[in-house]
Amino acid sequence: MDIKKSIEKIKELTNKMKAYEHAMAIFQWDMETEAPKASVEKISKTMGFFITENYNILLSKEMKDTLDILNENIDKLDELNAKVINELTKEYDKATKIPVEEYSKYQELVTKAQVVWEEAKTKKDFDIFKPYLKEIIDFNKKFIKYRGYKGHKYNTLLDDYEPGLTVDKADLFFTALKNNIVPLLKKIEDSNVIIDNEKLNIDVDIEKQKRFAKFLAEYINFDFNRGVLKESMHPFTLNFSNKDVRITTHYYKNNILSSIFSVLHEGGHGIYEQGISDEVSETILGHGTSMGIHESQSRMYENMFGRSIEFWKGIYNKFIENFEEFKDISIAEFYKLINKVENSKIRVEADELTYSLHVLVRYEIEKAIFNDEVTIDELPNLWNEKMKDYLNVEIENDAEGILQDVHWSAGLFGYFPSYALGNAYAAQIYNKLSQEIDIKNTLLNGEFKKINKYLNEKIHKYGKMKKPLELIKDITNEELNPQYFCDYLKEKYCEIYKIKK
Amino acid sequence: MDIKKSIEKIKELTNKMKAYEHAMAIFQWDMETEAPKASVEKISKTMGFFITENYNILLSKEMKDTLDILNENIDKLDELNAKVINELTKEYDKATKIPVEEYSKYQELVTKAQVVWEEAKTKKDFDIFKPYLKEIIDFNKKFIKYRGYKGHKYNTLLDDYEPGLTVDKADLFFTALKNNIVPLLKKIEDSNVIIDNEKLNIDVDIEKQKRFAKFLAEYINFDFNRGVLKESMHPFTLNFSNKDVRITTHYYKNNILSSIFSVLHEGGHGIYEQGISDEVSETILGHGTSMGIHESQSRMYENMFGRSIEFWKGIYNKFIENFEEFKDISIAEFYKLINKVENSKIRVEADELTYSLHVLVRYEIEKAIFNDEVTIDELPNLWNEKMKDYLNVEIENDAEGILQDVHWSAGLFGYFPSYALGNAYAAQIYNKLSQEIDIKNTLLNGEFKKINKYLNEKIHKYGKMKKPLELIKDITNEELNPQYFCDYLKEKYCEIYKIKK
Repeated sequence: MDIKKSIEKIKELTNKMKAYEHAMAIFQWDMETEAPKASVEKISKTMGFFITENYNILLSKEMKDTLDILNENIDKLDELNAKVINELTKEYDKATKIPVEEYSKYQELVTKAQVVWEEAKTKKDFDIFKPYLKEIIDFNKKFIKYRGYKGHKYNTLLDDYEPGLTVDKADLFFTALKNNIVPLLKKIEDSNVIIDNEKLNIDVDIEKQKRFAKFLAEYINFDFNRGVLKESMHPFTLNFSNKDVRITTHYYKNNILSSIFSVLHEGGHGIYEQGISDEVSETILGHGTSMGIHESQSRMYENMFGRSIEFWKGIYNKFIENFEEFKDISIAEFYKLINKVENSKIRVEADELTYSLHVLVRYEIEKAIFNDEVTIDELPNLWNEKMKDYLNVEIENDAEGILQDVHWSAGLFGYFPSYALGNAYAAQIYNKLSQEIDIKNTLLNGEFKKINKYLNEKIHKYGKMKKPLELIKDITNEELNPQYFCDYLKEKYCEIYKIKK
Repeated sequence: MDIKKSIEKIKELTNKMKAYEHAMAIFQWDMETEAPKASVEKISKTMGFFITENYNILLSKEMKDTLDILNENIDKLDELNAKVINELTKEYDKATKIPVEEYSKYQELVTKAQVVWEEAKTKKDFDIFKPYLKEIIDFNKKFIKYRGYKGHKYNTLLDDYEPGLTVDKADLFFTALKNNIVPLLKKIEDSNVIIDNEKLNIDVDIEKQKRFAKFLAEYINFDFNRGVLKESMHPFTLNFSNKDVRITTHYYKNNILSSIFSVLHEGGHGIYEQGISDEVSETILGHGTSMGIHESQSRMYENMFGRSIEFWKGIYNKFIENFEEFKDISIAEFYKLINKVENSKIRVEADELTYSLHVLVRYEIEKAIFNDEVTIDELPNLWNEKMKDYLNVEIENDAEGILQDVHWSAGLFGYFPSYALGNAYAAQIYNKLSQEIDIKNTLLNGEFKKINKYLNEKIHKYGKMKKPLELIKDITNEELNPQYFCDYLKEKYCEIYKIKK
């Protein structure tokens, strides 16, 4: 088979895989947003069938033979095709290195483990979940052996979510965060500024909140011609293609901020996916390049834009018009309310400043697990100690401690660091962005077309064509540098909490 | 291969087909209810792929060989398996008798034709659509030859939507309708009773309408644990399985009746699909048995229950509470308003009485077409003449005449009669139902559990296990008899319009 024919063959095979993925995505969307309770069994069955068909194509002899030919001729391919072949080969290798039977057993385990985790969390008892967590960890350690690793074993898992990330790089990064944020948080605790955001927690009609959510998504230029905004239990973003991106939010009657910042967050994810170029979108590279870069976009819209005074100055009239309940709150006060810092125990409720410390705790624990430096029995205490050290909170039970996140029960190790990385990427990119355009005025005037255009040119349009660290280098002319994030936080919170820098 | 293994093989193959159908159904649901505009191309592409995969399984050598074995041993199979094999063989035969190439060309034609039909309708000009309609008819005539026919050629098409229906049977049926309804309509026209339903056409908040729609669906016992009610441009019902049935309605600000009767109509379809037994639902027989029987259920809920005085007596307080705009309308008046008879030109806007006359016009024309008794050029005039004869209306242009329905542009010949049959089935079943339970009191008390149970035992649970005419025979101990429907109409409308019977 010649190169041209092989490329055609790859297109044919990946188009099939993409059709299955398209169907799985829409079933997931449906399940999370509106499917009736009793439908779950049948939907799971259909999805199981599609997963198998998809896997069969990836592991087919046709695929292997074609990949072999193209890998031998990789230098003769154009850039897009070469990157498609690299990505596909990576997926193929990963899938073939783990024996199918073990992988199926592991899938069964994590399916069960999520139910057990829920029970354990409800009963606030880590012991219930412990044997499952142990087995999941053991499987992952075995898989790392099968898959191979360079340096730390944990590197293989980090690389799954953040291509190119290693323990050495992450250590530098998290150390910088720790050294900057922990003392800053201490100063905030000691400051005299008290922010009482209880006054925002009054009941507000959901229809009003929906109207404002729609307005916000439009305001930041999420394209409703290529997208949907809907409600689900937990907010998320799903892309079927660059022309069909779905985002969700959740409305709480007595907490308007929850939906507002979810819409900005998921809107940021959504604008990223909508911005991928048509050419890339049609290939398997048609997704955001990594968890971390994705989070950099969502957090930039949520925090750097969405929690800035300029952003709110631009829409505060509209806000008060929609939510007249809050007409007595001045914009200066509102700005403080949405930027209150709290030593919280729960990651998903954490503010912009403390969030990364929650991630730090998880990173250090995961690293210790895969370095065999901690036993399963020691985990809850280790968790609680770190929470005390970094966030100065006393964890009183496992539900508000080690059992709070679903991730480990689903086998997602190596995933958490990308949340914190997202913040750091965002600050570094934001720094550059504000050198190129007058960001304060742009936010004041709500000129999101300008902002989106910049981010599109630098990030969005590439999809997975560029790796995360390559993107950062190309945009900012330096490696990942957490100092931008630390400086950003200091600047912002020292002003709010009247702390001398 | 032995019988047991062959049965397993059929299950495996049909499960795959069902997975593809499941995906196609959810994509259709998505497209009609919320998919963003720009997504259509990709969704169509994915659906095209699944249609092909589905077709490939049906036409596979594996399928043929297995069907051959099982058809040779059909007497040794249990009832359910035997019926599955019959149905599948019928599908297989149908698919193999038409050459694939011609069928693809036909598919392309009808896709294009629907766009052309829309243009023609907008421009009120049949000539634009004529060449397409001619080609669609010619294709269908050719397909009938390929597929074979007994008696009238049109029988093959009738049988597609209503298994067992023939021109001879339909002639008897439609003649009875014509002889009864046309004179009754004349008497109504001449009566002194004037019903002015304009007073219902005032603007009503959509949220209120949504609340009432939900209430109604729950009231008739549509099961929300196994179903969804949503909005779409045109109301429809879709079943993914007996545990996942989706219905839609459409809300018009100035017409609350539209949504109310759509919910009852689609609710009737939905309750049918939800009522199919688990055992049947898991096979390819897990759908309503025919268009006609399906319509019998939807129309029974919409008209016989939903436009009865007893039904409204049971919920009129609730109705007025929700729609206080109408608090000055007495229930006696309301009953008349929802049962007003009008000589309308448009089928989908027709009332319970005249609806069947609209179908009659289409039936007679389709029969003439496939009997080669009419040329394409003569169709508009033929349409207009029949509308004058039966409904006493003057058709002024093709848009309100022959171009009003989408069906023919989609190649749906033989489909219309099932709409009218549905009414007749419904009346015949309703007659039996009212002998077994005190239907007036049951409706007064809103005891839909009782009604649904009866219909479930007699109809719903079987899915496609029983053919339509077999069902009617089993329930009512006689053949299809249109007199029940005619008597029902006379009884109801003579009372409303004060006509001597």
